[in-house]
Amino acid sequence: MALYVAVVGPGEATPAQEAAAQEVGGALARAGAVLVSGGHGGVMAAACRGAAQGGGVTVGILPGPDRRAANEWVAVAIPTGLGELRNGLIVRAADAVIAVGGAYGTLSEVALALKTGVPVIGLDTWAIDGIEPATSAQAAVALALERAAG
Amino acid sequence: MALYVAVVGPGEATPAQEAAAQEVGGALARAGAVLVSGGHGGVMAAACRGAAQGGGVTVGILPGPDRRAANEWVAVAIPTGLGELRNGLIVRAADAVIAVGGAYGTLSEVALALKTGVPVIGLDTWAIDGIEPATSAQAAVALALERAAG
Amino acid sequence: MALYVAVVGPGEATPAQEAAAQEVGGALARAGAVLVSGGHGGVMAAACRGAAQGGGVTVGILPGPDRRAANEWVAVAIPTGLGELRNGLIVRAADAVIAVGGAYGTLSEVALALKTGVPVIGLDTWAIDGIEPATSAQAAVALALERAAG
Amino acid sequence: MALYVAVVGPGEATPAQEAAAQEVGGALARAGAVLVSGGHGGVMAAACRGAAQGGGVTVGILPGPDRRAANEWVAVAIPTGLGELRNGLIVRAADAVIAVGGAYGTLSEVALALKTGVPVIGLDTWAIDGIEPATSAQAAVALALERAAG
Repeated sequence: MALYVAVVGPGEATPAQEAAAQEVGGALARAGAVLVSGGHGGVMAAACRGAAQGGGVTVGILPGPDRRAANEWVAVAIPTGLGELRNGLIVRAADAVIAVGGAYGTLSEVALALKTGVPVIGLDTWAIDGIEPATSAQAAVALALERAAG
Repeated sequence: MALYVAVVGPGEATPAQEAAAQEVGGALARAGAVLVSGGHGGVMAAACRGAAQGGGVTVGILPGPDRRAANEWVAVAIPTGLGELRNGLIVRAADAVIAVGGAYGTLSEVALALKTGVPVIGLDTWAIDGIEPATSAQAAVALALERAAG
Repeated sequence: MALYVAVVGPGEATPAQEAAAQEVGGALARAGAVLVSGGHGGVMAAACRGAAQGGGVTVGILPGPDRRAANEWVAVAIPTGLGELRNGLIVRAADAVIAVGGAYGTLSEVALALKTGVPVIGLDTWAIDGIEPATSAQAAVALALERAAG
Repeated sequence: MALYVAVVGPGEATPAQEAAAQEVGGALARAGAVLVSGGHGGVMAAACRGAAQGGGVTVGILPGPDRRAANEWVAVAIPTGLGELRNGLIVRAADAVIAVGGAYGTLSEVALALKTGVPVIGLDTWAIDGIEPATSAQAAVALALERAAG
């Protein structure tokens, strides 16, 4: 069974964060992992783009009720209408979380993951005890897959 | 963008209901629709089996927190940990619902769909005003796709 | 510990249904039960009015994000932002459900209750196997409290 | 209409945190605010105890499906069965949040509040930009009520 890895991060990201997220998505696809995300823009879209271009499966769990809000690289779009409570569903659907950059929504996802025992790998994100920092996209994916399988 | 059709029905179903659900799944796959289901057994498993064998995409939105509870034909398994509240997510994720057979969980999905304006097609299910009855799996899928696109 | 009884029914109800709901609310208050409802109008408002006038506690679990959508007889208003998924929370919060009248939302609540083993008493509502019909507001409350305690 | 203030904090707290939470609860009760909490132990129980002893209304939004998991000072107990996703409901139900101490669950509540524009006051909690720190329970309550009304 495939591993599911969530890539979480802000909808408005820096070019460096988007580049990292795209590389993370591509590496997850090559490893055969399913990418879970919030389905919107910024880090989410970049990760989906990387995964889709790498031939991977991308899932977007959307806050609103309309599937069309998903970015174009989401293969399976799940509109929830739950607003920010959908952040908890992203975490539940994941065997590991990679946080790239960080705004408050990302922080909530990281916190819920740490609370529920889902491993969290960080790239340029919040300095919260429990997040394992990685220094490159490749290292983040390798670590996430190791923790997810563990 | 692909249409998403939920096939809902009891986890313990009759052979006739499972046969109908499998045929529904196959027809959805051939039409390029994404199959959404609760991911468990009975009607859900039969629909997923039909769709998977037809080369379609199958999504299972699970009530529990563990992905491994999904039936083997679910390609994308979303554990929610929401219990029966996940029924509402199945409906939200769907452009149309096909109900095959019917237990109380199915009834809740039908009711939520009718409440929120999602078209419901019925095959051997509850006699509730608002459900459009179909007399065959093929007819149910044709009607669901027409309503979903509408 | 007090029993919690949900009174569910349409937001647009007949005068007879509102009269019954108000009487149900009053009887619940006199019995010391907490009234749970969806917090809006029609049957919900009538039940809350009856309970509030009887000195009881009224809880409204609202679909939207704004507390001010609660009817004026709700003492504790919980905005959820979950839309119709909040119907499942009403059922979860209740030891028994009394359905007065019935639209699709009511049907979803009845179905979720029956699915999860919460007793359902009906007054002029859906004819669904598993609902115990009552012939008066007083009888409905007596039966609900008996089942809730059971 | 009363203001609703959530007091969030760890289920296992230090004596100083519990003392602060109890004082917060008492001050909220005296101000006529409704106390919302997760309904369990530690900071949650201490806040409820303070509010109940001060004659206030206490609401517990519980992660599990059983009302009996609420601490004894919860007047209105809402079992949700949502697990940690109920943290989002606590935030939605609140006009302001006071965080006392902090574990990962608390962090998720703080993050969701900041994400959705609910003011957060902190007492001995996470150092996250956006939290307004207070130096005493009285100051925290005064600030929370001011922000909630704003």
